[in-house]
Amino acid sequence: MSRDKVNLAQKLSLFGEQWSPKIVGELNGQHVRLVKLFGEFVWHHHDDEDELFLVVKGRFRMEYRDGEEWIEEGEFVVVPRGVEHRPVAEEEAHVMLFEPASTLNTGNVRDGLTQEVLDRI
Amino acid sequence: MSRDKVNLAQKLSLFGEQWSPKIVGELNGQHVRLVKLFGEFVWHHHDDEDELFLVVKGRFRMEYRDGEEWIEEGEFVVVPRGVEHRPVAEEEAHVMLFEPASTLNTGNVRDGLTQEVLDRI
Repeated sequence: MSRDKVNLAQKLSLFGEQWSPKIVGELNGQHVRLVKLFGEFVWHHHDDEDELFLVVKGRFRMEYRDGEEWIEEGEFVVVPRGVEHRPVAEEEAHVMLFEPASTLNTGNVRDGLTQEVLDRI
Repeated sequence: MSRDKVNLAQKLSLFGEQWSPKIVGELNGQHVRLVKLFGEFVWHHHDDEDELFLVVKGRFRMEYRDGEEWIEEGEFVVVPRGVEHRPVAEEEAHVMLFEPASTLNTGNVRDGLTQEVLDRI
């Protein structure tokens, strides 16, 4: 495990794809991932994993079946396991994720957005 | 578990004490904590926990027995379990921690800086 520091902006400059999380850190079986959001993701949940979204740049809307909340720069939200959710970004947003290494981006759903293998950058 | 969002700046405005981590989120057995650093902490390590420090405001120096590194705003470092370290901040720095809920702030050391019980804010 590296103890070298990670600069979020520098890592974010290394890729352009949206909805494609990149692994930038690992600790205690958890991943730190960076992802660029734009548009509507797929509705899904994670059976066994809680998932943290911290906005590094921009903002996005987290939709739930019973409501929604805008998450702004410098804010985070934890989506508990089992809770169906859909992130939506009207403009590109840059987000840091903190979640178990086992977490599949589309949770219980497999579709064109599913990323089975994530790059480490 | 709350799915309400957390605003880091708002939470940081709620306390002034330094070296006293506050719990602001919990997921997968891990805590999200906020802490204000100023001056020199105590040398310590964690036997079983890797620890992430993300700088929200300011900068600090992470010292190791064989070197040191400045961690700037928008950067994080993961200190692997077993690695002796000492955070030092020449000016007050605001830091978000990700670490197992079991993590004691002073690790293997007990002294005046040890916080046995952390507030949730």
